[in-house]
Amino acid sequence: MDTRTERDSMGEVAVPAECYWGAQTQRSLTNFEIGRENHRMPRALVRAFGLLKLAAARANAELGELDGELARLIEAAADEVAGGALDEHFPLVVFQTGSGTQSNMNANEVIANRANELAGEPRGTKSPVHPNDHVNRGQSSNDTFPTAMHVAIVLELHARLYPPVTALRDTLAAKAREFEDVVKSGRTHLMDATPVTLGQEIGAWVAQIDAALANLRHAEQALLDLAIGGTAVGTGLNAHPRFGAACARELAALTGHDFRSAQNRFAQLAAHDALVGVSTALRTLAGALFKMANDVRWLASGPRTGIAELAIPENEPGSSIMPGKVNPTQAEALTMVCARVFGNDATVAFAGTQGNFQLNVYKPVMAHGVLESLQLLGDAAASFDAHCARGLEPDRTRIAELLARNLMLVTALNRHIGYDRAAEIAKKAHKDGTTLRDAALALGYVSAEDFDRWVDALTMTRPDAE
Amino acid sequence: MDTRTERDSMGEVAVPAECYWGAQTQRSLTNFEIGRENHRMPRALVRAFGLLKLAAARANAELGELDGELARLIEAAADEVAGGALDEHFPLVVFQTGSGTQSNMNANEVIANRANELAGEPRGTKSPVHPNDHVNRGQSSNDTFPTAMHVAIVLELHARLYPPVTALRDTLAAKAREFEDVVKSGRTHLMDATPVTLGQEIGAWVAQIDAALANLRHAEQALLDLAIGGTAVGTGLNAHPRFGAACARELAALTGHDFRSAQNRFAQLAAHDALVGVSTALRTLAGALFKMANDVRWLASGPRTGIAELAIPENEPGSSIMPGKVNPTQAEALTMVCARVFGNDATVAFAGTQGNFQLNVYKPVMAHGVLESLQLLGDAAASFDAHCARGLEPDRTRIAELLARNLMLVTALNRHIGYDRAAEIAKKAHKDGTTLRDAALALGYVSAEDFDRWVDALTMTRPDAE
Amino acid sequence: MDTRTERDSMGEVAVPAECYWGAQTQRSLTNFEIGRENHRMPRALVRAFGLLKLAAARANAELGELDGELARLIEAAADEVAGGALDEHFPLVVFQTGSGTQSNMNANEVIANRANELAGEPRGTKSPVHPNDHVNRGQSSNDTFPTAMHVAIVLELHARLYPPVTALRDTLAAKAREFEDVVKSGRTHLMDATPVTLGQEIGAWVAQIDAALANLRHAEQALLDLAIGGTAVGTGLNAHPRFGAACARELAALTGHDFRSAQNRFAQLAAHDALVGVSTALRTLAGALFKMANDVRWLASGPRTGIAELAIPENEPGSSIMPGKVNPTQAEALTMVCARVFGNDATVAFAGTQGNFQLNVYKPVMAHGVLESLQLLGDAAASFDAHCARGLEPDRTRIAELLARNLMLVTALNRHIGYDRAAEIAKKAHKDGTTLRDAALALGYVSAEDFDRWVDALTMTRPDAE
Amino acid sequence: MDTRTERDSMGEVAVPAECYWGAQTQRSLTNFEIGRENHRMPRALVRAFGLLKLAAARANAELGELDGELARLIEAAADEVAGGALDEHFPLVVFQTGSGTQSNMNANEVIANRANELAGEPRGTKSPVHPNDHVNRGQSSNDTFPTAMHVAIVLELHARLYPPVTALRDTLAAKAREFEDVVKSGRTHLMDATPVTLGQEIGAWVAQIDAALANLRHAEQALLDLAIGGTAVGTGLNAHPRFGAACARELAALTGHDFRSAQNRFAQLAAHDALVGVSTALRTLAGALFKMANDVRWLASGPRTGIAELAIPENEPGSSIMPGKVNPTQAEALTMVCARVFGNDATVAFAGTQGNFQLNVYKPVMAHGVLESLQLLGDAAASFDAHCARGLEPDRTRIAELLARNLMLVTALNRHIGYDRAAEIAKKAHKDGTTLRDAALALGYVSAEDFDRWVDALTMTRPDAE
Repeated sequence: MDTRTERDSMGEVAVPAECYWGAQTQRSLTNFEIGRENHRMPRALVRAFGLLKLAAARANAELGELDGELARLIEAAADEVAGGALDEHFPLVVFQTGSGTQSNMNANEVIANRANELAGEPRGTKSPVHPNDHVNRGQSSNDTFPTAMHVAIVLELHARLYPPVTALRDTLAAKAREFEDVVKSGRTHLMDATPVTLGQEIGAWVAQIDAALANLRHAEQALLDLAIGGTAVGTGLNAHPRFGAACARELAALTGHDFRSAQNRFAQLAAHDALVGVSTALRTLAGALFKMANDVRWLASGPRTGIAELAIPENEPGSSIMPGKVNPTQAEALTMVCARVFGNDATVAFAGTQGNFQLNVYKPVMAHGVLESLQLLGDAAASFDAHCARGLEPDRTRIAELLARNLMLVTALNRHIGYDRAAEIAKKAHKDGTTLRDAALALGYVSAEDFDRWVDALTMTRPDAE
Repeated sequence: MDTRTERDSMGEVAVPAECYWGAQTQRSLTNFEIGRENHRMPRALVRAFGLLKLAAARANAELGELDGELARLIEAAADEVAGGALDEHFPLVVFQTGSGTQSNMNANEVIANRANELAGEPRGTKSPVHPNDHVNRGQSSNDTFPTAMHVAIVLELHARLYPPVTALRDTLAAKAREFEDVVKSGRTHLMDATPVTLGQEIGAWVAQIDAALANLRHAEQALLDLAIGGTAVGTGLNAHPRFGAACARELAALTGHDFRSAQNRFAQLAAHDALVGVSTALRTLAGALFKMANDVRWLASGPRTGIAELAIPENEPGSSIMPGKVNPTQAEALTMVCARVFGNDATVAFAGTQGNFQLNVYKPVMAHGVLESLQLLGDAAASFDAHCARGLEPDRTRIAELLARNLMLVTALNRHIGYDRAAEIAKKAHKDGTTLRDAALALGYVSAEDFDRWVDALTMTRPDAE
Repeated sequence: MDTRTERDSMGEVAVPAECYWGAQTQRSLTNFEIGRENHRMPRALVRAFGLLKLAAARANAELGELDGELARLIEAAADEVAGGALDEHFPLVVFQTGSGTQSNMNANEVIANRANELAGEPRGTKSPVHPNDHVNRGQSSNDTFPTAMHVAIVLELHARLYPPVTALRDTLAAKAREFEDVVKSGRTHLMDATPVTLGQEIGAWVAQIDAALANLRHAEQALLDLAIGGTAVGTGLNAHPRFGAACARELAALTGHDFRSAQNRFAQLAAHDALVGVSTALRTLAGALFKMANDVRWLASGPRTGIAELAIPENEPGSSIMPGKVNPTQAEALTMVCARVFGNDATVAFAGTQGNFQLNVYKPVMAHGVLESLQLLGDAAASFDAHCARGLEPDRTRIAELLARNLMLVTALNRHIGYDRAAEIAKKAHKDGTTLRDAALALGYVSAEDFDRWVDALTMTRPDAE
Repeated sequence: MDTRTERDSMGEVAVPAECYWGAQTQRSLTNFEIGRENHRMPRALVRAFGLLKLAAARANAELGELDGELARLIEAAADEVAGGALDEHFPLVVFQTGSGTQSNMNANEVIANRANELAGEPRGTKSPVHPNDHVNRGQSSNDTFPTAMHVAIVLELHARLYPPVTALRDTLAAKAREFEDVVKSGRTHLMDATPVTLGQEIGAWVAQIDAALANLRHAEQALLDLAIGGTAVGTGLNAHPRFGAACARELAALTGHDFRSAQNRFAQLAAHDALVGVSTALRTLAGALFKMANDVRWLASGPRTGIAELAIPENEPGSSIMPGKVNPTQAEALTMVCARVFGNDATVAFAGTQGNFQLNVYKPVMAHGVLESLQLLGDAAASFDAHCARGLEPDRTRIAELLARNLMLVTALNRHIGYDRAAEIAKKAHKDGTTLRDAALALGYVSAEDFDRWVDALTMTRPDAE
């Protein structure tokens, strides 16, 4: 392999000639052979670094901290990083320095080398653009990495989570409206309960998802506060006093999100409660989706020995040994994703507690966990929407049959004959294996006309309309 | 033991004569011998049931659903429950029916018996006040228990969490101001870093606590939405259509908190995302306190072989074998509470995912977990405040000594001589065991005057003031 | 309140006259007002301290480290602590010093005062028995507290967990045998699957519980290794070199459990992986019980709109609003306990990671979590056994009816006509709403005689007997 | 793209011509677009499927269930899968059907097509080898997938976890021996405590790792029990009665691990407590490594304002802004891995509780979590070993300096002058800022000769040698 020599403050390192990265990236590659197959630093974070370095160059130039020509070179190279064109030059893994120092240096090195190349210089010269003195101007890994985490997560929430989850929510809301007149047995404690409509049942899922999304959007707000400008420990040493605000403003302009300089930058480096907040909001969303998916598969259970009130799409053969079996596979994939999200939250929350003094050194694993959760939830919501939710259909015959047998319709009699007598009717019907009506009339607690007027399942789902 | 006979829809039960509870409470006592020593249903929840039954009676009377005299009797008895006077008549444990049915019936039975007693009737008559038909009028365990959970948690947050945590926060904020001029070594990766003031260091703790409290107050909002009015499955069967709203309004009047009837009551029965939200907000608050407490004990570590920059109060002998030892015991108690809160959140979040159809049957364990977390955090914050935070004092001599040795002050030179030369100076000083100044002058990269002007620790903490 | 004066190395303290505790216990009472209502140091731990101090006195006497008369006085007082007679003199809470120093001193102080009283001296004299120099002879909180944790948990496992869980297991095993011929539908993915017997279904629960118990007994072994003899940091400073072994031997003699001095005492102070191991074994047991309880409630769901293959005892009215409802309340209580155990494990595992250098200072919260988990699991198993498992009965009519409709019996044809044709039969029967037999004959893939011979549900559950 | 037509029981599907997979794999590819970038089914599992299918063909042939020529074709193709040559033909993701049905079918289809190709037939013919009737003979996804999980995890433990963790353990054990005479301050509660040797301190880490490894090897035993032979629900329907045992024996022969047919196959399908057991054992191992890594970085903290007793290798520049900074980056990477492992365990344990009836449908996410944990731990242990542990060196000067100042050496006087007087000496020295010796002599509690004889740090670490 063709190499060139790069150097850093510790000395010289041989780097593959075709790569833009420099000495520190190369050292990290050698020193951190951990999970290389599946745990490269998330691309979303790499691209956020591109945006950040671009914004920083603009801010520094504007504040007179950086020569205009150097800024233009850095901006051009950073823009390529932001666009993903240089993704392959970011080979580092999540499990590295806990402040993400080496990924910050990876960005500095790639941008410096690419900028110098644009300026007609060979790679490795650090001139005219120096990775530390120019690309990292007024910055430290300790403020850039958390800034990039925030930017990456905000962008990914909008790109990969909100759209599919909202689409799924809309599908379910449409189903709720479509089936608002399908009266069916309610179930509490898994036992027969008073009636609900299928629309009400599905509507409760929608309400949970809506609340979870609102909660997530609230949690997202804390990500708009950026650490940038705090440099190494939060004081902003070596940064222009107005650099943080200027850089945040540039990032807002570049992304359309209302990024701003955090009020207390010390806390932004020392802890990542904003990430923990988003992680738990994702966990709550996963909890809502989990409950919905469980309800779907139970309601679709059968076809002959389960509840079987709902039909779901048959997407693939369900069994390698049981011919003709169809399984609720989308629900299974989604609930497995939820289990993963619960675990990611445990990782993120644990890591979030472990800061010391001016720094929390679990930044990469926290960013990775949040990004993985949101991407998996987004993918799974899209899959569930396309391959399951849109095809949900009630089995009206089955639903009517089960409803007709449900003894808990007796509850409607409470107001007329009291709880104790109503209980007597239900128990008699259960014991005799008869209908409520038969038991009620046999006991003489109610006339046939009153029974038919009072015990009406559809009305029982709409007491407000009484 | 003297007993009387009570009956419910399953038959007769002997109950201790001196107790107000009835048949169903007694059955539960027999059937759920689980954790009786430490896991009685939280008193806060019992009292919230008192408030709820009082509010329900008022609402029902106002809507013409309940005779005025019966309502007055119920209100009088419920008021005693709310005030705690009948606490001993609520003997049930957390681990019972998952909807809390038996605690709702415990409230219904105690209030009915007490009300009947006020009306001059003996206990057990169910007349004039019937536990189901009157006290539970328009209600179901499925909507009353979650309503009581919300009411109890809101009241406890205000009574037992916000005051002590805010007081601790204020103590720390005062310390931050008091020590805003104490310049000291920053530490990142546990390693020497550029200077901060002790005020900035403590201020970061305050910022985390402030954010966590704001987050908690936001999560609390979701608790204002009440399930009441939904009855058994969310439809509101057997309740007056305006009962939920009226009852919530009465609760608001009784408590001063803006309770309201939830928009989607189905979701309020089937899931408890509002509790999960509060639980995670408590977890985040615990995370902030955990980090603070860890910083305190590390900064106070020593006295001779640790960091020893902070002095903490000596409250008790620290060791049964090492004479004269003083330990950071308040930090230890607080961080143990945090560990407990993390576990409670795991319980609550797990339970929150396990709802099916119209009901989540983990209500009592969820309520218990949230209440335990908030009470322990409140207690621990008060203890830490009184016995540790208020007595925090910097050891200015030690701080100055460590700062003087800190090589990372070299960072101030970056802007003047570049990162690479600055690194050379720090490495030389480290290798030679000398000061930065000596190394800088020896290398000739900077004059003595410039060094002294540029490398000033206090200025380094206030770049904005440059 | 009448008080007397006690003193420790920090000075004088007023203590209630009637209490045996001394100055340090009193300081802790004042300094740690955290969770006093429900979080007193577990009684099991207090009593284990009694056993330990008794064993220590014997060992010290035997090694010539303690005067025989002093030893006898200490033994007599410690025996009272072990028996629970002095429980009220142990008022401290879990959330105190993280090494449990104050509970060790509580034991030292109570035993010293009681021993001196036995010797005819007033409380507070520290003579002839001194709490540190005699009761704590050759000991430190750092080795006594973890020793007491191990002893307490081993004793409680045998007293409160193994018996009820084994009894429940035996009940289920008997049910498995009793119902070994009840052929029923299997269910995978919640969907109809090939037949199993109810005995096989219940037997799988038993197999899980058996494995979990074996696992727990293995984890228990690590608790037999005791820290005693390590004193403050593991070196055993101030203890007789053979003290640890001798004390462990005495504890073994007192309890009948094979306690021994740990090979590496440093690790016993610095970490509590043995407790984490037991906690996770309890979590796995809880997982097994959780799955069993969920199966029970789903199989008992109905009575008219669920699976309804199992009948469970009707222990109490199920609803305050739905008359005649019966719910699987024992399953609910048990699964709520499981949720609690999962959270306790999260607490214990978190705490277990947070040791530093020679000490982990989360000892009390870890011991509390493990003890709470085992006690709740034991109680819940006993309750479930008595009030649910023993009364489990199959509804043979319902089971036969569902089995007759189950299309997955077609699987038996794979070996004879191939998967693809078998699938065709099942799909046709499903589409037409007919039986498998009708569909098979209509398609002409099998004769009526062959069908009846090959598709026999009971035989399908016993392929080994073919 | 060139395609061919494949079919399954649901109809025809177009498949890329160059791929070996068939209709069901293709359906899964379309239906589960979830986490494709980083969540492909782990390669270790794919290869275990190769081994399993090879073993199954042998077992079936031996039992007369499969024609010898067909078996040989299947074996040849399965061997290629086992060797990794066909990895690219396994494109499915973790988040699919929860029983792993589609990955089992992926294996069946690839092996059938490859076997038919070896027999000179084109892909897609299902002849002479049929994916269900021959490759899947006597099997179901429900027993093959858990079997493959067990095989994969056992192989990976031996290939990727035990070697690097054992190597790290050995490095540390060698360091413990090397530094057995380096006497230093102990620390408890982060505070100065009585002396230990560095060898003892490191030895405690080794003891924790040893216990964790023993624990893991015990947990591994449960993985040797295989589900194979249980087919769809555990009864073994359609498998030869001796197939499970025969297949397990073949797997044992192929791998050298003592695989066997599980005693209760029902439980093997319905729950995965063996995986949960391994996951928690990995969590405990992670906990041990976490504590060790934390100790390392705290002991190496500084160089000027921390503890600074240990020197660690300088592998890379530590800061993009602070020149000359060196950070404990290997400890950071390792502890981040531990945080990930803790989260994976949360995922696995949660998933493990969610089985219903005859099946747990979280198999892929559980297998993925365990494999990720073990691979990351193995990688991180290797990295930490190579780049940190091997280079650990004490700073003997610093250690001696801190030890000389440590007041807790006073503990050695307890036995001679009693705890209370020893405490007085330590407090006086602390207050006056003097040495213990000065304070002791000033107080007159001990002569100079006695002091020097009794207070000897090295002796204090070896009381057994007294």
